[in-house]
Amino acid sequence: MNDRKKFSPSASSRHIEYRPGILRLLDQTRLPAETAFVEARTWQEVAEAIAHLRVRGAPAIGIAAAYALALHAHHLTDQNASTATFTSGLRTAADGLIASRPTAVNLSWAANRLLRYAQAQLAQNTTLPEIAASLDTLAQEIHADDIEACRSIGRYGSGLFDAQVSILTHCNTGDLATGGYGTALGIIRSLWQEGKLTGVYVDETRPLLQGSRLTAWELQRDGIPYTLIADNMAASCMQRGAIDAVIVGADRIARNGDTANKIGTYGLAVLARAHGIPFIVAAPCSTLDASLASGDQIVIEQRNPAEVTSFAGVAAAPDGATASNPAFDITPAAFITGIVTETGVLRPPYETDIQRVSAQPPERVAP
Amino acid sequence: MNDRKKFSPSASSRHIEYRPGILRLLDQTRLPAETAFVEARTWQEVAEAIAHLRVRGAPAIGIAAAYALALHAHHLTDQNASTATFTSGLRTAADGLIASRPTAVNLSWAANRLLRYAQAQLAQNTTLPEIAASLDTLAQEIHADDIEACRSIGRYGSGLFDAQVSILTHCNTGDLATGGYGTALGIIRSLWQEGKLTGVYVDETRPLLQGSRLTAWELQRDGIPYTLIADNMAASCMQRGAIDAVIVGADRIARNGDTANKIGTYGLAVLARAHGIPFIVAAPCSTLDASLASGDQIVIEQRNPAEVTSFAGVAAAPDGATASNPAFDITPAAFITGIVTETGVLRPPYETDIQRVSAQPPERVAP
Repeated sequence: MNDRKKFSPSASSRHIEYRPGILRLLDQTRLPAETAFVEARTWQEVAEAIAHLRVRGAPAIGIAAAYALALHAHHLTDQNASTATFTSGLRTAADGLIASRPTAVNLSWAANRLLRYAQAQLAQNTTLPEIAASLDTLAQEIHADDIEACRSIGRYGSGLFDAQVSILTHCNTGDLATGGYGTALGIIRSLWQEGKLTGVYVDETRPLLQGSRLTAWELQRDGIPYTLIADNMAASCMQRGAIDAVIVGADRIARNGDTANKIGTYGLAVLARAHGIPFIVAAPCSTLDASLASGDQIVIEQRNPAEVTSFAGVAAAPDGATASNPAFDITPAAFITGIVTETGVLRPPYETDIQRVSAQPPERVAP
Repeated sequence: MNDRKKFSPSASSRHIEYRPGILRLLDQTRLPAETAFVEARTWQEVAEAIAHLRVRGAPAIGIAAAYALALHAHHLTDQNASTATFTSGLRTAADGLIASRPTAVNLSWAANRLLRYAQAQLAQNTTLPEIAASLDTLAQEIHADDIEACRSIGRYGSGLFDAQVSILTHCNTGDLATGGYGTALGIIRSLWQEGKLTGVYVDETRPLLQGSRLTAWELQRDGIPYTLIADNMAASCMQRGAIDAVIVGADRIARNGDTANKIGTYGLAVLARAHGIPFIVAAPCSTLDASLASGDQIVIEQRNPAEVTSFAGVAAAPDGATASNPAFDITPAAFITGIVTETGVLRPPYETDIQRVSAQPPERVAP
């Protein structure tokens, strides 16, 4: 276990803090107006926080789910659960957490890692309190590994650019969406640190405004120059040559490279191609889902239409307005210039690389 | 003057009501929550209403400007203005009105029509009170003609479709944006009346949400089925085959067909082309500006960035966020399948047709 904390969760990752018994989450629904925290003591409270987007971003909700299962393992051992009850209790919690949001694969990736690990320990007759303690450690490892992965993504992504560039991004893929540092925003941070960034165009990202509420907040805090735009302004920015590349995150990437990401991503990919602009996806390997042949098989979460008929809590449409609210869309692999992971930049055709890198789950926790 | 009221301003056009001395405007900034009116008694009050989007939509602000000049002509005659003062006073008011929003050409089209008419009357030694009275009539004629033009646009546009269709539209181009009936929404109304419409996808149209606040309100009032979407959802609707055509309005159309319209229009045009979907512009001839060779010469209004960083007074971005807020973009003619005017459907290349139909100003008021 000695090599797992190359990157401790840093100041930038205090939005997810765990100590046995409590998972403390920055409530992202209240940013930027308020810095408020949720203290979750049960897996159900974590599932509620995920479902209501108090914690969001594919890697971040995977980390939160891992901590939630560790919390629950302690509850079960505190109740002197039998081995059978411990096993079924963890499974029930994992299923509940996975169901809290259907599209991001990181939830099931993290939950299944903890379940597999607990099973392996049980097979070695490890005691339940020892297993619960080592699930704490595994969850912390998943968290630390994600930060490390983001820093690698940042370096690999930044390496794609030689000259100074202006980047368009969508939604929030920064500290808040990950263990820390960020995926697409990690690349933007690395570009900035290396003096290769002229500025960032930030899509506000309707309906829940993760761009204006969260990405603008992170960039402003870090002193990185940005311009907030309404989502429908991206095309005219491209038309006048203001964008050198589009970089976005991902919630699930199928074996062929088709990518589910925040609604609006697909439109940006089409616009980028029409303007000859590279379209880059940034995600850790935990977002790859080699079990799905293509994006057609990815379930798209449909959220409450009230998120569309209102804006920042203010009604914006007439009473009774009908609205649609898919949370994600699918960008076909053919539109994606490259997928930046912690193992390097994958290039089309993606299938062989995605199968290779997703076949190496980093099961590094030892008993 | 006998033929000018083929279509009286109807119930649907009560958002602009004039009687000598008062222009009563439905305050569109307060919809859909409130049905409140502004009563403007001076041209400056009308210019304020235009600048603050209490009345908006290229044809509607042209009509409002015409009434504002008629109001001012009465003020000048009430003050026993000399002919010179009357002429310069009208010119000052026209300049102020035209400056209230720079992109829509209908403002200057309408204002210049009234100025030319007043000049012609002065040349015939008509008295100033008589001129003021006939400016009332001319403004009412411009209003009635616009409704008639919209109904023609509706018929011509509907005639483009044989089968039942699902239409995507952007911003508001309905009653509220015109004298009444609407341009793009006029076509949608005609399709509905003719049983050729399966439904409408309505872009909410950030930052000022004319789609959710105004278009959804009009469609709901009229019982036309619609689905409100965030602007960034349009691409995924096209991807899954839910859109048969995109129909939008225009604020200024250059001689070559390049079209200025609400920000986000250009992106829809690129997306429509990528998905093989017709992209239709609907506008009266008063929106054509044959004096400009191309869209490069159209001035794009830059509005307050606070419209992007907030909505209805609620902040959505951190204090001090930098934002961009162009109100319009330019769609190159090459992306436009057809331009529907009251004279018929113009097809590319547009230049000859635009010069022809814009060379026939309907100067029908007789002394």
